[in-house]
Amino acid sequence: ESANEFRTQKDSLTQKLQDTESRNQTLEAQLSDLEQRLESSQLEREAFRKSLRSLLELLDSKIFELNELRDTLAKLLEGS
Amino acid sequence: ESANEFRTQKDSLTQKLQDTESRNQTLEAQLSDLEQRLESSQLEREAFRKSLRSLLELLDSKIFELNELRDTLAKLLEGS
Amino acid sequence: ESANEFRTQKDSLTQKLQDTESRNQTLEAQLSDLEQRLESSQLEREAFRKSLRSLLELLDSKIFELNELRDTLAKLLEGS
Amino acid sequence: ESANEFRTQKDSLTQKLQDTESRNQTLEAQLSDLEQRLESSQLEREAFRKSLRSLLELLDSKIFELNELRDTLAKLLEGS
Repeated sequence: ESANEFRTQKDSLTQKLQDTESRNQTLEAQLSDLEQRLESSQLEREAFRKSLRSLLELLDSKIFELNELRDTLAKLLEGS
Repeated sequence: ESANEFRTQKDSLTQKLQDTESRNQTLEAQLSDLEQRLESSQLEREAFRKSLRSLLELLDSKIFELNELRDTLAKLLEGS
Repeated sequence: ESANEFRTQKDSLTQKLQDTESRNQTLEAQLSDLEQRLESSQLEREAFRKSLRSLLELLDSKIFELNELRDTLAKLLEGS
Repeated sequence: ESANEFRTQKDSLTQKLQDTESRNQTLEAQLSDLEQRLESSQLEREAFRKSLRSLLELLDSKIFELNELRDTLAKLLEGS
């Protein structure tokens, strides 16, 4: 092959490589961003579930207290 | 004893008897009134207690429903 | 009237008076007993109502606390 | 430059391009996977929050019913 043909092919490959490496960087950035969003979403979810567990415990104690109240009323009715 | 003395005693006894019989009627009336009030009070008490028993049943069903709610929340937390 | 007739009448009246006074005592005793029962019943009723008022206050605070719980859950849902 | 030098450079660039394009495909696949996981996570979150909103409505109706119960008890106390 002639020197000119080689040069043309080399320039073409070099350009293609640059474009592909550029695309790579974009993909890496997007991937990094998505990973952060996913982790952020999971932290949010854990915090949310933790708050809900607290509410569940609180609800349990309210139900317990209402049960004690009904028992007091039942005893009052029995004794009278 | 003379006839006059007997008459006086008889008149005195008759008066005392009338007074005592009159007092009797008053007492009978008071007794009847009190018996009615006591019965009325007991009927009121029974009606009141009956209403309270309904409230106790209603409270029981609310507590049951709150328990089901907490179970649903617990399952939701488990499954997520 | 003869002395014997007076005596008979006097004895008869005296007996009747004794019976009526005896009846009176019975009625007074019954009346006193009923008054005590009525007062006792009213004291019981007041004590019962006082206990119920405490229960009503307690129920109010449980409802208040359940309301706070639902508000916390609502905020949790809004913020997430 | 000689023909051999061009060939060497061309082969080198071609190899580098292949490696970069291969890396690209991996990144595209990872990105696609992460996007699915994120979407899946968001759908889960929406379903979860929807269930919670139902629970909140249910809790509201239980609180309403408890309030009616306390009002009934209050009226009972007033009227007696």
